[in-house]
Amino acid sequence: MSLVIVGTVAFDTIETPFGKADMVVGGAALYGSIAASRYTDDVQLVSVIGEDFPQSELDYMASRGINQDGLQLKKGEKSFYWSGRYHDNMNKRDTLITDLNVLETFDPVLPESYKTAEYVMLGNLQPDVQMRVIEQMNKRPKLIIMDTMNFWMDIAMDSLKKTIAKIDVLTINDEEARQLSGEYSLVKAAAKILDMGPTYLVIKKGEHGALLFDKNNVFSAPALPLAEVFDPTGAGDTFAGAFAGYLAQTDDISFENMKRAIIHGSAMASFCVEKFSNERLKSLTTEELNARLETFVSLTSFDLVAAEVA
Amino acid sequence: MSLVIVGTVAFDTIETPFGKADMVVGGAALYGSIAASRYTDDVQLVSVIGEDFPQSELDYMASRGINQDGLQLKKGEKSFYWSGRYHDNMNKRDTLITDLNVLETFDPVLPESYKTAEYVMLGNLQPDVQMRVIEQMNKRPKLIIMDTMNFWMDIAMDSLKKTIAKIDVLTINDEEARQLSGEYSLVKAAAKILDMGPTYLVIKKGEHGALLFDKNNVFSAPALPLAEVFDPTGAGDTFAGAFAGYLAQTDDISFENMKRAIIHGSAMASFCVEKFSNERLKSLTTEELNARLETFVSLTSFDLVAAEVA
Repeated sequence: MSLVIVGTVAFDTIETPFGKADMVVGGAALYGSIAASRYTDDVQLVSVIGEDFPQSELDYMASRGINQDGLQLKKGEKSFYWSGRYHDNMNKRDTLITDLNVLETFDPVLPESYKTAEYVMLGNLQPDVQMRVIEQMNKRPKLIIMDTMNFWMDIAMDSLKKTIAKIDVLTINDEEARQLSGEYSLVKAAAKILDMGPTYLVIKKGEHGALLFDKNNVFSAPALPLAEVFDPTGAGDTFAGAFAGYLAQTDDISFENMKRAIIHGSAMASFCVEKFSNERLKSLTTEELNARLETFVSLTSFDLVAAEVA
Repeated sequence: MSLVIVGTVAFDTIETPFGKADMVVGGAALYGSIAASRYTDDVQLVSVIGEDFPQSELDYMASRGINQDGLQLKKGEKSFYWSGRYHDNMNKRDTLITDLNVLETFDPVLPESYKTAEYVMLGNLQPDVQMRVIEQMNKRPKLIIMDTMNFWMDIAMDSLKKTIAKIDVLTINDEEARQLSGEYSLVKAAAKILDMGPTYLVIKKGEHGALLFDKNNVFSAPALPLAEVFDPTGAGDTFAGAFAGYLAQTDDISFENMKRAIIHGSAMASFCVEKFSNERLKSLTTEELNARLETFVSLTSFDLVAAEVA
């Protein structure tokens, strides 16, 4: 099935305790579309770049079958740029620079060929911009997945809630779930957020894995315990891209299949953090990915034979 | 199999956002032995109480088959007393009062009938006291499980490491694992801690579940997402008691069986937090416990059919 992915395609400068990567490629839609391209050959990218974005990276995405008809190139302008520094424990980061550049006036325009896509992944962007993508679809997609962040809860909660009301799967982290709902308990937070519109809620907990909720079920997915996280940038976007790509490939939006999609997303994200930028996703082989999926099975499997309680 | 459980039997005064419980019974060995008694009828308690400890609670423990030959009663003295207040999110608490009372001079004395137990659970106590229990055993138990806390890492690291060198399973939380090892990554922390002596390490992550490590394997157990945590006091001790009790019942100390023991521990702990003190453990039925075990299965189970990655 075809999958529209909307979000940033950008430059990042990243400092971690392990080193510094200067002006490497990044962005939610870059990570997301590369991850999704492992699952479906009909990824349709919607984003904007400046004249400075390297052709080699566009060629790489094209080689993975990522359609770039919806990628706007702004002559004489610069791509979105983000710079950040991670703390020693890698769980926190400080933003050093955010240069919106082409993103400041970004108005997504969907090519005709995108407007009948069954699956849509809205990467983190201003909620009004995400809404304009939904509005351009010729028919209601089978599934709209939306990522967002605390920043929009701080400055655009009304717009955010309007967009959330239109989508099927919301992916946010635990602190964002608490902020959005006003509830500390994630179970209560999930109930309130599902009342806002989505059928499914994915709560990303970083090194603690992820939770999937619908009104009647909950699934707890582990994160792979890692000896070293080299650079967490893009892990959430990679997760979302693989999650969406898996669903688009299997075309099954049941709770059971969402569980599988989360495991695929978690496995793919566990590679992303091994190197800077999209390096590891580029070198990733099918065999490596399948082996890691098996690791997730062994990480969580147990059977309750021989239990006798009194 | 017989299971010796050493630890505090005490009074707690607890304040949570939901209310206050004044001078209710608690302590690691109280929670642990009640939880373990669901699995084995040969729980052997080692602890100390003052004259103020209610006979009704001792009678209750006796009714669950908990052997109290190793429970010292100090005439004219008071039981150990702890008072704490939980923050609104229930993940943090402040200690208000710690009155050691009988604990100050506690020297565990094992009755002869305890000294051949195959399983030993050392609840959180001064590491030298835990060591004196090990030294009294007539033969090396099949499995020694030890719980401890950051307090002993702060003031008695040398004694702590000596005791850790003598045991098989260490149960600590994630921050304690980091403090004990000096490593932030839990994978690296686990490797260092296993080098200190234990064959298994259980890292308790509260609302994020638990990790089980041996030198070659890792298992990620979920915590049950709860709408409300009424009082977390005793959850870790209940976890450890059910974990130890399950192992003593099944008499199988393989990695696969440790996984099951962790699920049982997590399930039992999820009841403990529903009410103050040991109230919920007392009212818990076999049917409720079995139903919750099934919930843990559905919470984590997935199958990776139909995955095709490129």
